[in-house]
Amino acid sequence: MGTGDIEDRPAAGDRSGIVLGSNQYGKAEVRVVRIERDTARHRIADLNVTSLLRGDYEECYRGGDNAHVLATDTQKNTIYAFAKEYGISSPEEFLLTLGRHFTGSVPWTTGGRWEAEQFGWERIPVQGRGHDHSFVRTGQEVRTAAVTIADGVEHVLGGLKDLLVLKSTGSEFHGFPRDKYTTLPETTDRILATSVTARWRFLPAAGADYDASYAAVKALLLETFAQTHSLSLQQTIFAIGERILQERAELAEIRFVMPNKHHYLMDLGPFGLQNNNEVFIVGDRPYGLMNTAVTRAGQAEAPAAWEWLAGFC
Amino acid sequence: MGTGDIEDRPAAGDRSGIVLGSNQYGKAEVRVVRIERDTARHRIADLNVTSLLRGDYEECYRGGDNAHVLATDTQKNTIYAFAKEYGISSPEEFLLTLGRHFTGSVPWTTGGRWEAEQFGWERIPVQGRGHDHSFVRTGQEVRTAAVTIADGVEHVLGGLKDLLVLKSTGSEFHGFPRDKYTTLPETTDRILATSVTARWRFLPAAGADYDASYAAVKALLLETFAQTHSLSLQQTIFAIGERILQERAELAEIRFVMPNKHHYLMDLGPFGLQNNNEVFIVGDRPYGLMNTAVTRAGQAEAPAAWEWLAGFC
Amino acid sequence: MGTGDIEDRPAAGDRSGIVLGSNQYGKAEVRVVRIERDTARHRIADLNVTSLLRGDYEECYRGGDNAHVLATDTQKNTIYAFAKEYGISSPEEFLLTLGRHFTGSVPWTTGGRWEAEQFGWERIPVQGRGHDHSFVRTGQEVRTAAVTIADGVEHVLGGLKDLLVLKSTGSEFHGFPRDKYTTLPETTDRILATSVTARWRFLPAAGADYDASYAAVKALLLETFAQTHSLSLQQTIFAIGERILQERAELAEIRFVMPNKHHYLMDLGPFGLQNNNEVFIVGDRPYGLMNTAVTRAGQAEAPAAWEWLAGFC
Amino acid sequence: MGTGDIEDRPAAGDRSGIVLGSNQYGKAEVRVVRIERDTARHRIADLNVTSLLRGDYEECYRGGDNAHVLATDTQKNTIYAFAKEYGISSPEEFLLTLGRHFTGSVPWTTGGRWEAEQFGWERIPVQGRGHDHSFVRTGQEVRTAAVTIADGVEHVLGGLKDLLVLKSTGSEFHGFPRDKYTTLPETTDRILATSVTARWRFLPAAGADYDASYAAVKALLLETFAQTHSLSLQQTIFAIGERILQERAELAEIRFVMPNKHHYLMDLGPFGLQNNNEVFIVGDRPYGLMNTAVTRAGQAEAPAAWEWLAGFC
Repeated sequence: MGTGDIEDRPAAGDRSGIVLGSNQYGKAEVRVVRIERDTARHRIADLNVTSLLRGDYEECYRGGDNAHVLATDTQKNTIYAFAKEYGISSPEEFLLTLGRHFTGSVPWTTGGRWEAEQFGWERIPVQGRGHDHSFVRTGQEVRTAAVTIADGVEHVLGGLKDLLVLKSTGSEFHGFPRDKYTTLPETTDRILATSVTARWRFLPAAGADYDASYAAVKALLLETFAQTHSLSLQQTIFAIGERILQERAELAEIRFVMPNKHHYLMDLGPFGLQNNNEVFIVGDRPYGLMNTAVTRAGQAEAPAAWEWLAGFC
Repeated sequence: MGTGDIEDRPAAGDRSGIVLGSNQYGKAEVRVVRIERDTARHRIADLNVTSLLRGDYEECYRGGDNAHVLATDTQKNTIYAFAKEYGISSPEEFLLTLGRHFTGSVPWTTGGRWEAEQFGWERIPVQGRGHDHSFVRTGQEVRTAAVTIADGVEHVLGGLKDLLVLKSTGSEFHGFPRDKYTTLPETTDRILATSVTARWRFLPAAGADYDASYAAVKALLLETFAQTHSLSLQQTIFAIGERILQERAELAEIRFVMPNKHHYLMDLGPFGLQNNNEVFIVGDRPYGLMNTAVTRAGQAEAPAAWEWLAGFC
Repeated sequence: MGTGDIEDRPAAGDRSGIVLGSNQYGKAEVRVVRIERDTARHRIADLNVTSLLRGDYEECYRGGDNAHVLATDTQKNTIYAFAKEYGISSPEEFLLTLGRHFTGSVPWTTGGRWEAEQFGWERIPVQGRGHDHSFVRTGQEVRTAAVTIADGVEHVLGGLKDLLVLKSTGSEFHGFPRDKYTTLPETTDRILATSVTARWRFLPAAGADYDASYAAVKALLLETFAQTHSLSLQQTIFAIGERILQERAELAEIRFVMPNKHHYLMDLGPFGLQNNNEVFIVGDRPYGLMNTAVTRAGQAEAPAAWEWLAGFC
Repeated sequence: MGTGDIEDRPAAGDRSGIVLGSNQYGKAEVRVVRIERDTARHRIADLNVTSLLRGDYEECYRGGDNAHVLATDTQKNTIYAFAKEYGISSPEEFLLTLGRHFTGSVPWTTGGRWEAEQFGWERIPVQGRGHDHSFVRTGQEVRTAAVTIADGVEHVLGGLKDLLVLKSTGSEFHGFPRDKYTTLPETTDRILATSVTARWRFLPAAGADYDASYAAVKALLLETFAQTHSLSLQQTIFAIGERILQERAELAEIRFVMPNKHHYLMDLGPFGLQNNNEVFIVGDRPYGLMNTAVTRAGQAEAPAAWEWLAGFC
C-alpha cells in the first residue's frame, strides 16, 4: 500500500525472502438491532457492522502466536456491548466509538477500519399516526458509514447505496467518437437510469451532525438528478457532486459508483407498431459503469479513507 | 397433477411405457418498462413478466416436431407489443390480456400461467412537488400478480412480496409443548419480525378494481400487523387474513408465506450489562416458516390458481 | 388443496365465515455439518434441512393457544440431535427418520414435509491421494431430497439442482409456427445450455439405495444430454427422463425445471468479421422455461409428493 | 489517489472550487462465450469481461462534451470482436490485448483496468471419454484476471474466487488475549473453513504461461491448506502465500481475502448426548475476515495494480 495506514513490515532478517505485506482482520457483518424503549414510543436502529484491526500481527502470521490477536469474536461482543452502553445515535458516531476503543485499548492495534450499513424503518401508520412499536422497512436505499483510523488520524465517510433513480426523458447522448467498433446511434431522448452508490468524506472537524448531513445529501442528490438535463451520465454525476459540495461545507469530497442501467428501445416495427420512446427492454448485463470522485479544491487528499472500499479506492 | 389444468396425456399405445406428464413452457422474466408520455407528466410501469403455455405439445417432446411450439421468443415479443398496443393499467389486467390472446389465438394452447412482478416508482420531489419525468424507486415491497387459465376458467391473483415488518414489543410466545428436544424458554416480550409474501384470489366477477384492492390490502395488512398483540406468528397471520377478507368482499381467499425472522436477545451478562430487550442479534438462518391459507367459507376452492407457485400451492 | 395431505378444516360453526385453509409450519434452512471421525479418515455430511409440520393447529391460528405448536426451535434441535444419534447416511434416509419421529411422537401432527440440500465435499489431493481430513467443495451441483408424509403414506424424492450443461453444436430449432409477433429465425446449429433442476420420485418399496440411485441418475442425465441431437429443449428433456425411467426401475417419475439459457450469436458484420457460430452473447433475462414431468405408465400419481415444491407442483 | 494511474486534474482556474477527482468509466460484465470449432472437438472459453478507461474526460464531466468518450457500447463491441479476431487463449492475455488496443488507439485514454471472470467447463464423460461438444460446468471455483495500464506500465494479476475448503480437524485457536469483552473459549480442535479469494501479481516479464501458473497456484494452495496444521487462519494464509511464492518464481506477490466461515459446536448436552466434534452449526453471519498480502522481499510495490479491486487495494 505504502500509505502508512496498514502494516507494512520490513523484510529485515527474514531468511525466506517472503514477507508479510499489508493486512487487516476482524469480524464482518455483525447484525445488531438496538431498541430505544425509554418511553412507550420505541425507536429502532438496525445495523450491519464490520470491524477490522490493523497493527502488529507478524507473530501470528509467521508462527501462529496469537498473543496479539484480539479474537474476532471479541470484536463482535464489543459491538453488541457498545450498542447497549452507548446506544446508536448515528452509524458514524457508533463506528468512531468502536474505533477509538480498539485503537485506544489494544496496544499493538494502531489503526483499523469500521464499517456499517444501516437499514431504515418507519412507523406503520394506524389511523393517520405512526404506531409506537410497529415498523415497516423503508426500502428505498441503504445508508452506509465507514471510519478509518490510520497514523493517528480519523477519517469519516457517510454514504448510501442502492438508490434507484430514472428519468424517462431529458437525457441525451451524442457527439461521442466513432471508431471501427462503434455502432451505437446518437440519441437526443433516452431513458437514464442508475443505482446510486455514494460516499462522502467529512472535513476533519468536531461537531458534524451526521444525520442532518445524510438527509441533506440525499435530498440534494435526488433533486439535482431530477433537475439536470443530461448530456451524459458523467455530466449528471459531476453536477450532483458539485451541487452537494457547494451546499454542504462540512464535506471535503464525494465519490460515486454508478452503473448506467440501460433501457433499450424495443423495435416494434416488425409488428406494425411505432415506438415513440414508450416501450423499453430493461437490461441486466452488461451495464455502463462510472467511478467518479468530486473534490473540494485546496483540501488535502486522504487516500487512507478510501482504501479497501470496493469501487472507491 | 390430476386437476385438469395442465396437459396429462394418456399412455395409450406408447410402447416404452414412459409417458409425458404435466408440463408448461414459455418465457420467464421479460423486463419491460412502459412510459405513458401523452402529456409532459409521464407515468411509468415497470414489470417483470413470465408467460407459460399449456396444451398439446406431445409431438415436440416425443419427436422434436415443433409445429405446436409457439416460440418463447414470440411470447416475449407479444409482451412488448402488447405493452404498446394496450398499455399497462394494472399487472392483473395486462396478464389477462396476454392469457386471452394466447389461449384464444393458438389452437393447441388450452391454458397457461402468466405472472408479473411490478416495481414501484415515485416522483422525485423538487421544491415540494413531484417531478414530471424523474423518479425514484419505491423500495418497500414488490407487487405481484398471477393469472391462470385452466379448463376455460380464468383465475386472478394479486399479491406482494418482500414487505418487511417488525414489532419491537407486543409479541409473546409461550404455552408450547416441551419434549425431550425443547430448550426454548417461554417469553412474554420478544421482537416479532417477518417478510410478508402474500397472494389473494379474486372472486370470479367482472369489474374488479385491482389497483384499489392492492392499496387496501396492503394498508389492512400493515394496520392489522401493528394493532394485533401477538401470541404467535400464526395468530398474527390469521388475524391479518381474516381482517382482509372481512373488509374486501371481492376476495375469495388469501395465502401467506411468512418467515419468522428471529431476533435473539444478546446475553450481555458476561460484560456486566443488563439487556432489557434492547440489544438483539439478527439471525439469517435458520428461520421459522409459515405457509397459511385463509379462505371465505362456502366458496369453491380453486387449486388450479395456485399450482406451480412457489410456497403457495 | 383438496388432496388430504394438509389440514383443511371445515368452517362449521365459525361465525365470521372466514376459515383456516391449508397450512404448514416449521424451521427452514437448518445448516448442519456432521463429521464421522471414528477413524482418522474423516467423512463429512453437509446439509441444509427444512422441517415443516402439518396437523391440527386451529387453536393457535384462531386464538393464540400454542399447546399444539411444537416450537420451530425444537424442530431445529431435533435435527442436530438426530445428526448425532443416527448419523447422516443419505439425505433421504435422514429426512425419513425426522418425519417418522415427528408424526410418530406428536399426536396432533399428522404429516409434514422435510427437505434437504446436500453440499458435496471431496478430499484435497496431496501427493496423489485424498487427504484424511481436508476437503474442497465439489461445486458442480447441489443434491436435494424431499420427504412427504401425508395420509399415512411416505413419499420420497431425490433430486439435484444447479447442474449447468452446454452443447456447442448438435442443437437445432425450426418448424415452429409463425404468427404476427414471430421474428425468431430458424436455426440448424445453435448453442443449447441449461441449468438442470430435477426431482425423481421413488416407488414405494423398501430397500432403495438412495446414493446409488443418485449417482446413476446424474450419470444418465449427463450422458443422455450429450448424446441427444436436439431438435428442441423439450425433446432433450423427454429423452433424458425416458432414459432414466427405463434404466432405473426404482423410480416412478422424474420432473424437470429447465431454463433455456440463451446464447445469442453476436453480429460481427459491422466490423467486417464473419461469425461462424464462434462468438456468443450470454443472456441473463429473459430465458426460456420448461416444467416437465415424465412418468411411468400405469403407476398411481402422487400429487402430495410434489405440492409446495417450487416449480414442481 | 495520488498514485498517478488515474486522472487527477488540477483545480487551476476553476471558479467554483469544486474539481473532478480520480475517475474511470466503461462497460461492466460483458458475458462472452467463444467456441473454438476448427475441429469437431470443440473448445470453449466463457468469460465475464469488464473494461474501464482512464484519461482526459474533463470536458464530458463538466460540460457534457462527449468528444473524448468512447462509448461503453463500443467497448462492449470491441470485446466481442476481439474474441473472434484474437481468440481467448487465457483471460490475462485477452485483457492485455484489450488494454493495449484502447490505450494505443484512443489518444486521450492513458490507462485503464480490464477485468475478467472465467467459468470452467469440462467435457461430459460418455463411455469413458469426454464428449466432443457437450460440457458440464466445473463448479469448484471461478478464475479471475485483472490487467491495469497506468503510467505506461502493464500490471497483470491472476486469481481465483469462491474456492471452498474445510479441515475437519488439525486446527487450533488459543493463546489470544482476553479483555472485558472476551468470552470465546480456547480450543485445540475445531473446524477450519474458508472461501478462498486470491489474486497474484506477475513480475513484469515476457513469456509468462498464465494457464500453467493458474494450475500450479491452485494446486499449491489446496495442498498447503491440507498439510498445514493450523494455529490460526492467519498462520494458514501466510503459509499458503509463502509456499506459492517460493515455488513460483514468476510471481511478485499474492493477496488473499478469506472469511473464517465459522462452524459452531452444537451443544447436545440438554438432550443427554455428547458432541465429540461431530455435529456443527454452520454460521452465515457474522464471519471472520482476513485481508492479507504476502510479498517477495526486494520487489518494487505496485499499488496501481490493486487499486479499485474490492478487498485487495
